[in-house]
Amino acid sequence: MSKKIPIEVCFSPVMYHRFHNDEAIVVIVDILRATSAICTAFENGVNQIIPVQTLDEAYEYKKKGFLVAAERDGIKCDFADFGNSPFNFTPNVVKDKTLVYSTTNGTQAIHMAEKAYKVVVGSFLNLSALTDFLAYHKRPVVIFCAGWKDRFSLEDTLFAGSLAEKLLETNLFFTICDSATASIDLWSIARNNVMAYIEKAAQRHRLKKNGLDDVLEYCFTHDLTSLVPEFKNNVLIVEKYCENINNFSQNENKISN
Amino acid sequence: MSKKIPIEVCFSPVMYHRFHNDEAIVVIVDILRATSAICTAFENGVNQIIPVQTLDEAYEYKKKGFLVAAERDGIKCDFADFGNSPFNFTPNVVKDKTLVYSTTNGTQAIHMAEKAYKVVVGSFLNLSALTDFLAYHKRPVVIFCAGWKDRFSLEDTLFAGSLAEKLLETNLFFTICDSATASIDLWSIARNNVMAYIEKAAQRHRLKKNGLDDVLEYCFTHDLTSLVPEFKNNVLIVEKYCENINNFSQNENKISN
Repeated sequence: MSKKIPIEVCFSPVMYHRFHNDEAIVVIVDILRATSAICTAFENGVNQIIPVQTLDEAYEYKKKGFLVAAERDGIKCDFADFGNSPFNFTPNVVKDKTLVYSTTNGTQAIHMAEKAYKVVVGSFLNLSALTDFLAYHKRPVVIFCAGWKDRFSLEDTLFAGSLAEKLLETNLFFTICDSATASIDLWSIARNNVMAYIEKAAQRHRLKKNGLDDVLEYCFTHDLTSLVPEFKNNVLIVEKYCENINNFSQNENKISN
Repeated sequence: MSKKIPIEVCFSPVMYHRFHNDEAIVVIVDILRATSAICTAFENGVNQIIPVQTLDEAYEYKKKGFLVAAERDGIKCDFADFGNSPFNFTPNVVKDKTLVYSTTNGTQAIHMAEKAYKVVVGSFLNLSALTDFLAYHKRPVVIFCAGWKDRFSLEDTLFAGSLAEKLLETNLFFTICDSATASIDLWSIARNNVMAYIEKAAQRHRLKKNGLDDVLEYCFTHDLTSLVPEFKNNVLIVEKYCENINNFSQNENKISN
């Protein structure tokens, strides 16, 4: 039997320096709502997403005519086309477009992990596809919860637990990471009634306060997409798009030659 | 009914800046083994403990003739009198002494929290006494898990869950903190067989590897002491000792006047 591959879970950006591994695939998780929204945008045909860390950067892109999604503390920024509800990213809005995206926690985490072997975007919406992707690549996995302002987040942890559990079920992976163990155990408590469990989460109350909790059930729906967005050369893409780009470039080269 | 008091749980020193509150009582937790050892030393009559952050400081104290406990990664430092097993701190060794103490995670956390209203030391060994202490003071509570090298630690989290649960039972406290909720739920899974559950914890395996896991059952024993060590003026003391000191000083003043 070949050697099993480690799974680790990082609960906050401020802990990430202890988890960074050049050889690992890092899964960015910000369930309410950034990574759920990103998966939705790709399912609905967005070409690429440029995640930016600051609102200044987002604003610069807006001035250049880009479509911009930007929020802080869950609230859409004035200059932006929309905030980070996945319900904004409908096919008529995003199809074949480039989207610029800045959120409170999620986009920062994407940039922090950029030196890893691969950085991919995870949500319940692409849970099974992500599991297949990780099982295919057979690399150490770091599930990186974006959390909330450096804090632990219950909804990101439930996703980490569900993904870790599915990876363990492949028999390719193992874990000795306390955060992974805790995530799996919390998922085991929550799984039979996630909507009831998530009532306890702070972010659920933040969203409710701002009238933004219409996305809850959607964000905990499994496998609405088979796409795994990946962060490459400072943009989020899906491999299919990537391959098209490559084919297109090769064809172009052939034509121009 | 008077307003309830918040409980929060901080999973790592790198998150503490988000939890600091001048008005709170911070409970330092490093179950395997620093805070269990500190509670043991006070129960066995130590006068005071000077927690130091660096081994250099600990070594300087040693040269001045102090009794020194110092470890890194669970291993006793060469120059020290002992490491941080609570079994070292027997009455014949520590009674009426001043002990200097430096550990991998716990002593740093004590210093980080020093600007809070009070900083106290928590372990299963003083769980009920600590609950009474916190219920008496009616201050916001931050349970500060020292963790392991900035990471989340399962054993500290189980303690945080057990303490948070006991505080909630007083009806004086409430929590909307995701880490507190997670701690309580993990404790609910572990509580009926903590020794079996803790088999999953990384630190349990670190201790075992180093032959230091003889303390496990002891560190999960409830209420072996009624003392709550407190960090005041750079030393850990218990109030009883403090009162004696005050009485003694007052008497001295009377005599010298």
